[in-house]
Amino acid sequence: MEQIEHHACFGGRQEVWKHASSTLGCEMRFGVYLPPAALAGQRCPVLYWLSGLTCSEQNFITKAGAQAHAAEHGLILVAPDTSPRGEGVANDAAYDLGQGAGFYLNATQAPWVPHFRMEDYVVQELPALVEAQFPASERRAIFGHSMGGHGALTLALRHPGRYASVSAFSPIVAPSQVPWGQKAFAAYLGDDRAAWAEHDAVAMIAGDLAERLPLLVDQGEADEFLAGQLKPELLQQACAAAGHPLTLRRQPGYDHSYYFIASFIGEHIAHHAQALRA
Amino acid sequence: MEQIEHHACFGGRQEVWKHASSTLGCEMRFGVYLPPAALAGQRCPVLYWLSGLTCSEQNFITKAGAQAHAAEHGLILVAPDTSPRGEGVANDAAYDLGQGAGFYLNATQAPWVPHFRMEDYVVQELPALVEAQFPASERRAIFGHSMGGHGALTLALRHPGRYASVSAFSPIVAPSQVPWGQKAFAAYLGDDRAAWAEHDAVAMIAGDLAERLPLLVDQGEADEFLAGQLKPELLQQACAAAGHPLTLRRQPGYDHSYYFIASFIGEHIAHHAQALRA
Repeated sequence: MEQIEHHACFGGRQEVWKHASSTLGCEMRFGVYLPPAALAGQRCPVLYWLSGLTCSEQNFITKAGAQAHAAEHGLILVAPDTSPRGEGVANDAAYDLGQGAGFYLNATQAPWVPHFRMEDYVVQELPALVEAQFPASERRAIFGHSMGGHGALTLALRHPGRYASVSAFSPIVAPSQVPWGQKAFAAYLGDDRAAWAEHDAVAMIAGDLAERLPLLVDQGEADEFLAGQLKPELLQQACAAAGHPLTLRRQPGYDHSYYFIASFIGEHIAHHAQALRA
Repeated sequence: MEQIEHHACFGGRQEVWKHASSTLGCEMRFGVYLPPAALAGQRCPVLYWLSGLTCSEQNFITKAGAQAHAAEHGLILVAPDTSPRGEGVANDAAYDLGQGAGFYLNATQAPWVPHFRMEDYVVQELPALVEAQFPASERRAIFGHSMGGHGALTLALRHPGRYASVSAFSPIVAPSQVPWGQKAFAAYLGDDRAAWAEHDAVAMIAGDLAERLPLLVDQGEADEFLAGQLKPELLQQACAAAGHPLTLRRQPGYDHSYYFIASFIGEHIAHHAQALRA
């Protein structure tokens, strides 16, 4: 593991590391923010951020304004890249498939096997690394944006007990029902719709889940992808039918950008801090 | 004037506009953040941000985390580009001269005449435009980073009464005495050192100024340009000798990046808000 960036930030430190991922079979980068409490030697809970299509580890750490709030609440923030990367890794010319578009699942189809295993990377390998190398406790929470909102919701629902809390900005709540998800799931998982349902938040909630982890979702009403790709009403309907606790906040005027994320990131981090302290 | 971006942000709106600048003879872009008070119809004071070498209007608006604080204090933020731009505008292959490196002065030398007139653009044309097109009052303050810190200090000192307050992050305080400034001033102003002194904060303070506007300066002690290009001790000595009020804060561990700026931007904006209310 090699440190490639470090910056003092709100009394703590924003770092970027690279390491050889055994899960993904390539070199990976991730951002980690260590709050002042961690630098003082305290073991802090870890809040994982999953980014959207085309993002690297850089978007969140430079644009979300999350560090001020993580410093205040004593949380470590970890922001991985959105897919395996590199010349030896399969790719596609489109922005919404392949590198930069891992969709936080383990692919079962060629040419995406063996590298595209973002679920195992985010849920297993990365936390093990973080908890061994940084002053991190084993308390974890997860949030994300768009494709990363899908990732946060599905990984939290698929791994009961692993995350104390989950939230999402502008998530793809029903990938099986929208173009982004249909394209990616067909490529990564093949034609079996039953396999798709295991990675689709709305389908999972409509089914029989072990745990009813409350969901916090913020969605901008001026989001350019609202009607075509995001469809929060499908999540609202599924949660209402299943009795799954959901706080869905529709924010008038907000779009899909990091300006939206920055505006509400403080409230999301406070939400996770409360759950992580419990 | 044409709007090219608009995003809801902390209850206000981050916009980017382009316009044909008569001062610079080219098309220019600038960012403007309108706080909730401005959207509600109130005329708000304007705080101008000047960016550093290589930056466009985008760096500050995406990375500084300033909007939350401007929203709270009811200030409009305006962030111009750092030089004239375009195919018809003189340039240099180096990052520290020509486009992206205007140094906030009016050039007197070829090939930088007639486009490179950033002082007139920032002090005259841009405020006139902002005050005509947005719900802006005529109360103004100015701050900036690195080359833009130099710009903020020198423009405030050169135009007494025009700015209610001034502050800077990691400014080039004595361009006549460091490589960045010597290269740019020789190119833009020629060999006459007396002309340089009129755009050098340390030289101006050492001379006889009309107004003793207090200066607030934050400087990271792990800044990679500290010893070679920034030399805050020269500002400290000049202010002490001249009796010019200076608050110079050396921040241990902080570097030259936007992580440093973001960490203290709230305190700078509060400082300007207080002066602009007075």
